[in-house]
Amino acid sequence: MTASAPGTTLLVLDAEPLPRLGRLTGRVRVEHADASTLADRLPYADVLLVWDFTSTAVRAAWPGEGRRPRWVHTASAGVDHLLCPELAASDTVVTNARGVFERPVAEYVAALVLALAKDLPRTWDLQREGVWRHRETQRVAGTRACVVGSGPIGRSIAALLKAVGITSAIVGRVPRTGIHGPGDLDRLMARADWVIAAAPLTEQTYGMFDERRFGVMQPSARFINVGRGQLVVESALASALARRWIAGAALDVFAREPLSPDSPLWHAPGLLVSPHMSGDTVGSRDELGAQFVELYERWAAGRPLSNVVDKQRGYVPGH
Amino acid sequence: MTASAPGTTLLVLDAEPLPRLGRLTGRVRVEHADASTLADRLPYADVLLVWDFTSTAVRAAWPGEGRRPRWVHTASAGVDHLLCPELAASDTVVTNARGVFERPVAEYVAALVLALAKDLPRTWDLQREGVWRHRETQRVAGTRACVVGSGPIGRSIAALLKAVGITSAIVGRVPRTGIHGPGDLDRLMARADWVIAAAPLTEQTYGMFDERRFGVMQPSARFINVGRGQLVVESALASALARRWIAGAALDVFAREPLSPDSPLWHAPGLLVSPHMSGDTVGSRDELGAQFVELYERWAAGRPLSNVVDKQRGYVPGH
Repeated sequence: MTASAPGTTLLVLDAEPLPRLGRLTGRVRVEHADASTLADRLPYADVLLVWDFTSTAVRAAWPGEGRRPRWVHTASAGVDHLLCPELAASDTVVTNARGVFERPVAEYVAALVLALAKDLPRTWDLQREGVWRHRETQRVAGTRACVVGSGPIGRSIAALLKAVGITSAIVGRVPRTGIHGPGDLDRLMARADWVIAAAPLTEQTYGMFDERRFGVMQPSARFINVGRGQLVVESALASALARRWIAGAALDVFAREPLSPDSPLWHAPGLLVSPHMSGDTVGSRDELGAQFVELYERWAAGRPLSNVVDKQRGYVPGH
Repeated sequence: MTASAPGTTLLVLDAEPLPRLGRLTGRVRVEHADASTLADRLPYADVLLVWDFTSTAVRAAWPGEGRRPRWVHTASAGVDHLLCPELAASDTVVTNARGVFERPVAEYVAALVLALAKDLPRTWDLQREGVWRHRETQRVAGTRACVVGSGPIGRSIAALLKAVGITSAIVGRVPRTGIHGPGDLDRLMARADWVIAAAPLTEQTYGMFDERRFGVMQPSARFINVGRGQLVVESALASALARRWIAGAALDVFAREPLSPDSPLWHAPGLLVSPHMSGDTVGSRDELGAQFVELYERWAAGRPLSNVVDKQRGYVPGH
């Protein structure tokens, strides 16, 4: 640090590659922490950037001893990994990466929907065996989706599915124009060809996709989770697939990540597994860095922050 | 046949399942043929329905001895499997299945594009091994496609890609509004992220995707063929993939179908193989049957047929 280093200390909970701080470089004192050092360094931080959004170190270190950062930003859409009652009750402002992941996640969901409709996993299994086996596949135009999660990610998924001809009903915490309330969920799941989980993890959504809910789905329908693993009772999903209650599923998120090498989910029949990557496209990290820099400029100038999380609800309230 | 059987004989070149002829049942004399009996039965047919669109039996049996059908309909988009110089020079009208395959093929191409962008084949390889390996994948929005083939299938592909955020340039036989001519092909292929072959097989398009053309593509670009196998010099594609001239490819059609079990294409690195099924969705066969019935009603009433193939050019001329 030089003599001209300013008074603001930015603590970064690290992940590789480190964020590009652009204009902020040299203007703020940047410190680094990992899970083992976070608790010791928090009292000296004005701002905490949770760059490692897979870490639960913040929740573990909070409230702890001493001064707390006035602002915590997480380079993720979900905030479940850092919110705890003490942080929620505090004056610390929490912001998220709203705006970066919407389109990538929507594209990933569209990719899974089309791959399942066109039976691509089976085609590539047959290719591996060198077997030419023609089949008729499904047309997606005219099919129906139920998107659970009415935030910007859920709405972006519904918009992209509509562009490929799939009509979506969106379910949120409270009914409003264009959004169904939880009371409609069973009925909408029962008539959907695609059920897409894209909700934040909260007390209300924890374990919402359980044996009963998989039981109301059509045998031809498929389930996709790009929200949080704990939305789903994983054993109930595996059982529903094994009993052919539903035709298939794809999980990008899991209750425990990374998924253990000996998890039965890797080999559950009809289940596609991907390693929590739906939102992560080439260039996303630069966007996340640029987004933080822009928020920091607002904060330093005393202007109101955007992307402010409602710490009681556990997400950024929508429009 | 009853005494009330009408004078018109419809000969069907069979494939399972047989077409549903709906309103025509009992109104026309229906005869059946396969490759071995077609030549003998052709002189007694007024109309030939090529229901087995994988068969080259028509080309083999034409012109042959005796009377020829006045009308040949094929339940396919391409007509390369049946056109021969003698048929082209004759008075026999040829119609195709324009209108049935556009949307399914476009969905199939979108499925392949998204699956490649999101690296799904690799994800499922890793799943088989039980390996959690996070990667950043590609955003499709903002990428560029070059769609070769300006018929309804090519245009439908471009429209669906546009809906998911991909800008397409379409290349046809002659330049016209919104369609580039062959002279622009190299330049458009050189800047495309996706090159999609959806052209009819004609003298002009045979072998058009050769070593030189794969050489102009970007190393990050991918090639997809849903047209006809002979558009592509398959050995040149395999070589371009092996030398990493391009990042990947997907073939749904091949010079010889079914692809031989010992073809090296099954295991060419970076190549996805599917068994000529891009247009075949559940319900397509009923649509193909209904389309023939509708054309037959026109023909029987002496009204002009739609979907009439220009037998010199080898496809239905576009708008």
